[in-house]
Amino acid sequence: MSTEMSMGGTVADGPRGTDPADGLLAALRAAVGPAHLLVDAGARAAYETDWTGRFAGTALAVVRPAGTDEVVAVLRACAAHATPVVPRGGGTGLVGGAVPLGGEVVLSLERLDHVGPVDVAGGSVVVGAGATLAAVDRSAADHGLAVGVDLASRDSATIGGMVATDAGGVRVIAHGPMRRQVLGLEAVLADGSVLRRIPGLAKDGTGYALPELLAGSEGTLAVVTAVHLRLVPRPVATTVLLLGCADVADALGRVAAARRAGTVLAAELVRDRGVRMVHQHAGVPLPLPEPLPPLLLLLELDGDPDRAGRADALAALVGDRPAAIAADVADARRLWAVRERHTEAVQRLGTPTKLDVTVPPAAMAEVLAEVDRIAPDAVVFGHIGDASLHVNLLDAPPGLDEQVLRLVAAHGGSIAAEHGIGVAKAHLVHLTRDDADVAAMRAVKRALDPTGLLNPGKVLPPDPPGS
Amino acid sequence: MSTEMSMGGTVADGPRGTDPADGLLAALRAAVGPAHLLVDAGARAAYETDWTGRFAGTALAVVRPAGTDEVVAVLRACAAHATPVVPRGGGTGLVGGAVPLGGEVVLSLERLDHVGPVDVAGGSVVVGAGATLAAVDRSAADHGLAVGVDLASRDSATIGGMVATDAGGVRVIAHGPMRRQVLGLEAVLADGSVLRRIPGLAKDGTGYALPELLAGSEGTLAVVTAVHLRLVPRPVATTVLLLGCADVADALGRVAAARRAGTVLAAELVRDRGVRMVHQHAGVPLPLPEPLPPLLLLLELDGDPDRAGRADALAALVGDRPAAIAADVADARRLWAVRERHTEAVQRLGTPTKLDVTVPPAAMAEVLAEVDRIAPDAVVFGHIGDASLHVNLLDAPPGLDEQVLRLVAAHGGSIAAEHGIGVAKAHLVHLTRDDADVAAMRAVKRALDPTGLLNPGKVLPPDPPGS
Repeated sequence: MSTEMSMGGTVADGPRGTDPADGLLAALRAAVGPAHLLVDAGARAAYETDWTGRFAGTALAVVRPAGTDEVVAVLRACAAHATPVVPRGGGTGLVGGAVPLGGEVVLSLERLDHVGPVDVAGGSVVVGAGATLAAVDRSAADHGLAVGVDLASRDSATIGGMVATDAGGVRVIAHGPMRRQVLGLEAVLADGSVLRRIPGLAKDGTGYALPELLAGSEGTLAVVTAVHLRLVPRPVATTVLLLGCADVADALGRVAAARRAGTVLAAELVRDRGVRMVHQHAGVPLPLPEPLPPLLLLLELDGDPDRAGRADALAALVGDRPAAIAADVADARRLWAVRERHTEAVQRLGTPTKLDVTVPPAAMAEVLAEVDRIAPDAVVFGHIGDASLHVNLLDAPPGLDEQVLRLVAAHGGSIAAEHGIGVAKAHLVHLTRDDADVAAMRAVKRALDPTGLLNPGKVLPPDPPGS
Repeated sequence: MSTEMSMGGTVADGPRGTDPADGLLAALRAAVGPAHLLVDAGARAAYETDWTGRFAGTALAVVRPAGTDEVVAVLRACAAHATPVVPRGGGTGLVGGAVPLGGEVVLSLERLDHVGPVDVAGGSVVVGAGATLAAVDRSAADHGLAVGVDLASRDSATIGGMVATDAGGVRVIAHGPMRRQVLGLEAVLADGSVLRRIPGLAKDGTGYALPELLAGSEGTLAVVTAVHLRLVPRPVATTVLLLGCADVADALGRVAAARRAGTVLAAELVRDRGVRMVHQHAGVPLPLPEPLPPLLLLLELDGDPDRAGRADALAALVGDRPAAIAADVADARRLWAVRERHTEAVQRLGTPTKLDVTVPPAAMAEVLAEVDRIAPDAVVFGHIGDASLHVNLLDAPPGLDEQVLRLVAAHGGSIAAEHGIGVAKAHLVHLTRDDADVAAMRAVKRALDPTGLLNPGKVLPPDPPGS
């Protein structure tokens, strides 16, 4: 693509007398103020990688605008100097989507952290892109409401980043992914114009659903600056149980039975070896006696264990399976720790290659068996309620990650459930998207960002030769 | 836009020896077979207008392809002959979105009416774009499931048309509009390539959300050929009541109270004068004695009236308001008739101008009062649960419709809640979409349909002079 911009901007670290980047840096300084233009390597470092540590690059500079107008000024300056921009939220991504590849300007939205007043009657709130999930959820909690998506990285993950990646987490089975929480948004397009679709009417069929398109586009089509978020009722009390299952079919059957019986807030899968790993490396007590069942299903149901009829419903759900049912809130936390501390325990064993896939339920047993065959040390856990699994490869030989993703794709699955494509999987998009689909995506990218200003190298596969 | 195609195709009705359209007609005949190429005015007529009767145009021809491959062949032939295409579902639109403006080829999807096997465990079904809502819902009903959207035009409205317009209806409060029912779709793009996103995994963040973008694009970006539809549990029994309310605030308060108390399947608003109109012109008995309250709220709740605790909940909901609570299914139908037969009764009074708007709840009382002032004969009813109203103008002087839409826009509402923009409101999109937004929509249109093949003159405002 002849119009694509160069990523060969010079990194400006030392004296910059005749550096061609000087003009851009001066413009950025004027846009955001000197305190919020970071050019020293030390100051930049925290913005040049993500939580995996697998992806890192060098930025020309980091800018921290204070509001939408400053974001516009930053994009205009970068466009004028043909220097691409990497939008960045809380840096909790796992696929390198917010990491510079070399020479870009990293645009951190962290200072757009405004949390508006909660509209209690309408069940919504307008927030800046840089507001963290935890901050917004705290505001919502004051009114008995909650953000519909919850993530372990809630203290750092920002609403803008979550919208840009269409984040998932443990509540998708109840409330859908991040896209479903978006009533409206404001975003700055590559040409510096501002798309204002904040009002968030219950129904509005006036033209194209651009907010739906921008959600999940990982900063490649626009920079999300504010979001009108739907809020959901905050559960007053829940019932948490861990259920030993014989196999995948059994676990899926239990999820279906739980859904028929009431509101399922979470349905998570862990495996015996993962539970032992969490026990050994994160000190979490075994929730069931050895020998552990091969699969363990964590269910969280709306409503407390003492509510009318629940004991019978739980007995029917459990049958003769080994089970631990939380008697109180502390118990519930202990059971959740078995699932939530997988991430920490895996990290203690090394830097894992984290694959994030969706597998059609009918193929899940076979995919798991195949993964065990080709990657016997893989730690697999995830959101069985929406058929998405996290496959963590430890000390993986080169190419094993791609082998697993090809396996998933061959079974009709998705190579990106909820973490996005980023830089990690851009070259693999063709595994589940055919040429017509990729061509349509490229056309949309060129339409909204004709010069390739926004987050180049992410999401879309590299341009084919000769294009 | 210099690349836009001409709509000046000659209508080929009589002998066509040297007609330049002959080549196209021959190609279309080869694509769909002679029985499914309609060129005679009589045969075309049913495809040249919509349910309002307000919009009509002359088509060069109507084609009825049998499947996706034939849709591709039709689009390629039309592109080769620079003749635009109007995709058409059941013809139940109300804004002229599926009506030719003059000289286009109307592409009817009616023969793509396949209804696949219902995936009972997953709660979904794959259907052709031409399958009617009623046909799909019948299939779903065999398994205790339902389509999440319901419309009065269910026997004619097609799933493809409903996705293309992001149709609404009475169940939006419970299940969201049509876009929310789409798990996956197949669509033919203007270049004849086929976007295949049918699988519909629970989560799939691989690239851009093109299905979400195509939903609601009214056939201007692609021709939807198949849809993977989410199905919802079919209510076993419901409670229907009609509640007299003093004013809008009272009615909104009752909707909120009903939502807190359980699952609201519908929350519809009618007014005293509308109820009298339905009584007089459609023979529906008055549901409450005169004097009727100014507003009547129809609520449908999941679960039968005899369920435990419901009597108390209903008593609390009703308070001292006049109310009719359906004792049985026949009763429920009578109460629904008060709302559903508004459309028929209005038609008997003339050809109404039907406006379809969303009004922020906080502005609804004021907007209603203003509408009464400028259009005292207007019949207003609608889906108060999602703040959308249908304003029917009778014998409206020229410009009154636009005056009402400007009023709605000025109060932060939407000029198109669920019927789409079509040709009726394309020139008014700027009332709620600013220049940056319209420019972004135009860019997306050009990206996916650079020659303007698909449904020209619909959705987007006319190109500005000099472009």
